[in-house]
Order: sequence, then C-alpha cells, then structure tokens
Amino acid sequence: MTNAPETSAEDSLIARYFKPLATDPGALALVDDAAILSSSGEDIVVTTDAVVEGVHYLATDPPDTVARKALRVNLSDLAAKGASPAGFVLTLALRSKEDAWLRPFADALGEDAKTFACPLLGGDTVSTPGPQMISITAFGRVPKGRMVGRTGARPGDLVFVTGTIGDAALGLDVLTGGAAAAAVTDPAARGYLIDRYRVPRPRNALASIVRDHASAGMDVSDGLAGDLAKLCAASGVSAVINAHHVPASPAAAIAVPVVGLEKLVSGGDDYEILCTVPEGRSAAFSRQAALAGVEVAVIGTIISGQGAPQWIDAQGREVTLWRLSYSHF
Amino acid sequence: MTNAPETSAEDSLIARYFKPLATDPGALALVDDAAILSSSGEDIVVTTDAVVEGVHYLATDPPDTVARKALRVNLSDLAAKGASPAGFVLTLALRSKEDAWLRPFADALGEDAKTFACPLLGGDTVSTPGPQMISITAFGRVPKGRMVGRTGARPGDLVFVTGTIGDAALGLDVLTGGAAAAAVTDPAARGYLIDRYRVPRPRNALASIVRDHASAGMDVSDGLAGDLAKLCAASGVSAVINAHHVPASPAAAIAVPVVGLEKLVSGGDDYEILCTVPEGRSAAFSRQAALAGVEVAVIGTIISGQGAPQWIDAQGREVTLWRLSYSHF
Repeated sequence: MTNAPETSAEDSLIARYFKPLATDPGALALVDDAAILSSSGEDIVVTTDAVVEGVHYLATDPPDTVARKALRVNLSDLAAKGASPAGFVLTLALRSKEDAWLRPFADALGEDAKTFACPLLGGDTVSTPGPQMISITAFGRVPKGRMVGRTGARPGDLVFVTGTIGDAALGLDVLTGGAAAAAVTDPAARGYLIDRYRVPRPRNALASIVRDHASAGMDVSDGLAGDLAKLCAASGVSAVINAHHVPASPAAAIAVPVVGLEKLVSGGDDYEILCTVPEGRSAAFSRQAALAGVEVAVIGTIISGQGAPQWIDAQGREVTLWRLSYSHF
Repeated sequence: MTNAPETSAEDSLIARYFKPLATDPGALALVDDAAILSSSGEDIVVTTDAVVEGVHYLATDPPDTVARKALRVNLSDLAAKGASPAGFVLTLALRSKEDAWLRPFADALGEDAKTFACPLLGGDTVSTPGPQMISITAFGRVPKGRMVGRTGARPGDLVFVTGTIGDAALGLDVLTGGAAAAAVTDPAARGYLIDRYRVPRPRNALASIVRDHASAGMDVSDGLAGDLAKLCAASGVSAVINAHHVPASPAAAIAVPVVGLEKLVSGGDDYEILCTVPEGRSAAFSRQAALAGVEVAVIGTIISGQGAPQWIDAQGREVTLWRLSYSHF
C-alpha cells in the first residue's frame, strides 16, 4: 500500500493564508524552508521586533490591526535607518488556527506588504499554549555604508521628530481606562487616539530624506524621552529640548492638562522618527519632508556633554521627567 | 534639574548578556535598532525558526541546551540549503530576567555563534506572561542562484540522509515517559538520546558539498517521512525508500522492536540533511562527505510519479506509515 499523501494542518494553514502574500520570487512560494534575498553590493539593513498579546497589543484588538502593527513597527525601524523595504519573514505563535482571526490578519498583512512594498519572504508557524506572539524580521536596502545610525549626532545639530507624539500611549489609556480615558470624552478624539495605538503610521516616505540629511536617527518606540537619551548616549552628546515644542495632536492636547507631558514623551508606541540634522541642512530637510507629505518639528538642539538631555518649558525652567520610557522588565 | 540618566532593565539585560556576543561589526555593538548585513552580489539565504517552551523544548531542559537548539535548528536549514552562515537575529520572549537562566543561555549561544561562525547581529527582548519563546532568523550566503531548493529532485536521483534518524524523538520519549522510556534502560543510551533531542548537530560541514552535488535538499525537522513527501511534492516526483536502510544509532536500534519504525521516521527534531543526488555524482558526494567527517547513507531512489513516497522493507513488502510527521495543529 502506498502511504496516503498527507498535508499537515500547518502546511494547509500556510498555503491558505500566507502563500497568496508570497509574491516575491525570493519567497519561493513558501515551499522551501528558506528564502532568497538577492543583493547587488548594497547593505542589507536587518531589524527585528516582536509584538506579544497583552503586552504590545490587547487581546481584544482586531486581528487586522494586530497584523498591521506587527509589520509597521518593523517598517518604522527601516524608515528611521534610511532604508527602503526589501521584505520580511514572520514567526507566528498561535493558540489556535481559527479562520475568524487568521483571515483578517493575513488579508491586512498582505495589504500592508503591498502598500509598503515589503513582501513576505518566509516564516514559521508554531503553536503556543500562551499568549499569541508575532515576531517579524524585516529587511531594507541602503547604499553601502549609508545606514543612518545612532552615533552621528553632533553639537549644534537640530533635533527633529515627525508627526505627533504621545497619541498611542493615550489611546492605550483610553482602551484600558487609564487617566486619559476620563480626560478625553469626545468620541472622535478617542477614536483617533485608539487608532494611533493600534495602527502605527511608519514614516517610510521620509526614509531617503533622512538618509540624505540626518546625522543620526531612530524610531520612537519606547518613549521620546528615553529614546532621545539613548541616541545622545550612543553619540556621546547631550541635548536641550523645548518641551512645549513637542508636537501634540488636538486629541492629545485635550489630555495633557490632566495626564501631564510626561505621559506623552515617555509612553512609547509612537513609531515616529527622531533624528538629528546639521543646522545647515535643516531647511532642505524640512522642505523635502513637506514635499513628501510628512510633518516634521524641531524640538531642540544637540549640545556637548555626557549628561542626560535637559527638558525646558516655555518659561525656560527645567522640566523633571521621572519616567523616560516603557521597559519590559 | 537634569533628568537622571536612566538605563532601562531591558537595555541592561541586553548589555549584560548579549553585547559580548555581538562581535560582528554589522551588529553595531547592539546600540542600534538595526544591524547591517553587507553583501557583494551573492544571494542571502534567510531562514526563521522559533522554539517554544513546552512545545519544542521542555521547561526542565537546561538553558544552555535551549540556546543551542534555538540557534542550531536554523543553522541546520542553512546547511541543507548549501549556505555558509552569515549571522542571526534573536527575539527572546521571557517571563523573567533571572541570571540563573540567562547567564548559561547567553554563554552557550555565544559559544555556538563562534563555533559555527554565525554572529549575533541584533534582536528584540520582550516580556511575556506565557511560555518562553526564542525566535531566530538566520542568514547565510551562497553564490548567486546556487541555493539548494526543494524542486530539483529528478527520477533516478539517489536519496541521502546524514547521521542517524529518530534519536531525538526517542530522546523526548525517554524524557517524558513515552514508549521508548521503557524500551531503553541503559543509562548511556538514554543519555545519548536525550542529548540528541536537546542539542541538534547541524551538518554545516556538509553545506558546500550539498551545494556542489545535490539536486534538492532540506533538513529533517518534522519527520523524515513527511519531509521527504514535501520534497517529492515540490519536485513533482515520487520515491521508493528502503526502510531498513534508514540509519539508526545503536541506542535507537534497541528501541525499534518496541516503538516501531514509524516513531523514528515521523518523530522529527532530527536536524539531519535529506538530499537527492544524481547517481553520477553520488560517489563524489559520499567521498567528500566522509572527508568532511559527516556520515551519509543512501535510503532510496527518486522515481517519476505524483504519489507519496513508497516505503518497503527488507523483504520488498510495502510498509504503511500512518503518521508522517509532527504537526503543530
């Protein structure tokens, strides 16, 4: 007797949900254990970020937003490094293989992969008795030696951030009944903040402009204050930041009198770009960013020194931040 | 007042345990969110495999073996694809940051990274309330267009496997009180099987030889029978396998009369290479493998057809396998 051809449930899951996403020739239609990332002498930028149910997203978050968040937190890293997306691999740790969750998850992931020109190259699907987890490793390309690092900030450089800061942390508050939940009652404002928490808006449109002008850059994931401190430490410099210049959305502006500035700048999950630009290049940077449709704001200046960045208010008084960022431990 | 410099517990964890492993210049000493994989026109082979506590390893497995397994299951993929290791990124989902677990984990990971010339390039450390999980994406290099795929097996090719098959599945049985636990009583044999379950022996020494001679290849991770069926399906061929030619270790040979052949060929976790070699190249393949110190065995022949591979015993009778491989769902 010939053994009956068998397709494991894992293989069917991959074929059903993820094979349609694997449009890149290097993905080998997901029939192999490995994928091929072709290169022609440029640098491949590699970044990896995982999202865990109950930690980075809520068990009640819709599966389509979970998919977008999982990919976009990685796209955001590529943008801040000045890299063009080249593809990603996905590890999915699942409790079950329910179509009601996987179908919208895979569809949204496929849409984002197309929108950001970052195709699925491969992955691994495993079962877990615990919380679901999505780990993505994403690849980008930059001309050799041109990745924007963290170590190049120099005294006199201007400190820029994209978009608005703090929305995602406030959105999480709204979802979980934190302080911002009581402060922001307007449904449209609440909806805006929740959406910012669930679906990051990575600034990939700015990648090549960051690469052309920034001396250092990173994305804001753990909190602006803490991430800036890391960038300064890596560059061996300090900074003076005008707290009142940190861009806030109208919805966040409603919350600030109640929750305080610290919530915005230490909450994390912003996925905006923080970068330093030499003063002589700042006008070109701002102009090109505007042409690319990305709002950027100057929030301060890099200074020499080893101390942590100083935050000052509109009256020139120092602002004390007790918490700089989110930490997992 | 200047804000006190703050290092998050996550950053200290990375600096303490993993920075010493990040010796490659592309790792940027782990001070960046991203790493650089330089290229010079070759193909980058990408593979990703996760191990989950309670699924791929036992909660009681020593942390050093967990580290080695997490990396080696990926190294095994690179070997089967004919690729030289280039580096890896690590996502670590941890419940706690106990030194008693992390210290031996990181030390063993560093040793293996050095042994296999596969440096740590970056990673992400997240907290989870659930089982620990280690997801690794590993990179290899092959000359352009030379990755060994799954689709090139042709009728007449010989089917080779490296090492011995089934040891890991039996080792898991010994650890968990399965059928093999009663069958294998000799402490040395039990220890051997347990070690094969906990610490795969990826065949990276064979990578370039596989690349030079194999028409198709993959590593045996889910079970030899199922993995062979996948390779045949991808190549549009079938195979005849001599079950009695499947190489078994002395310890496994003790267990076979009790647990049956199916346990060996469907249990998985072998991390041996399964490959097909045109007959005219098989002598050179065997000779070069011997020089590289890797035992290889011919277990059958590729035939034309769409059916699942046929397994036959020493008397030429067909062997029915009810289960071909491990599936997560």
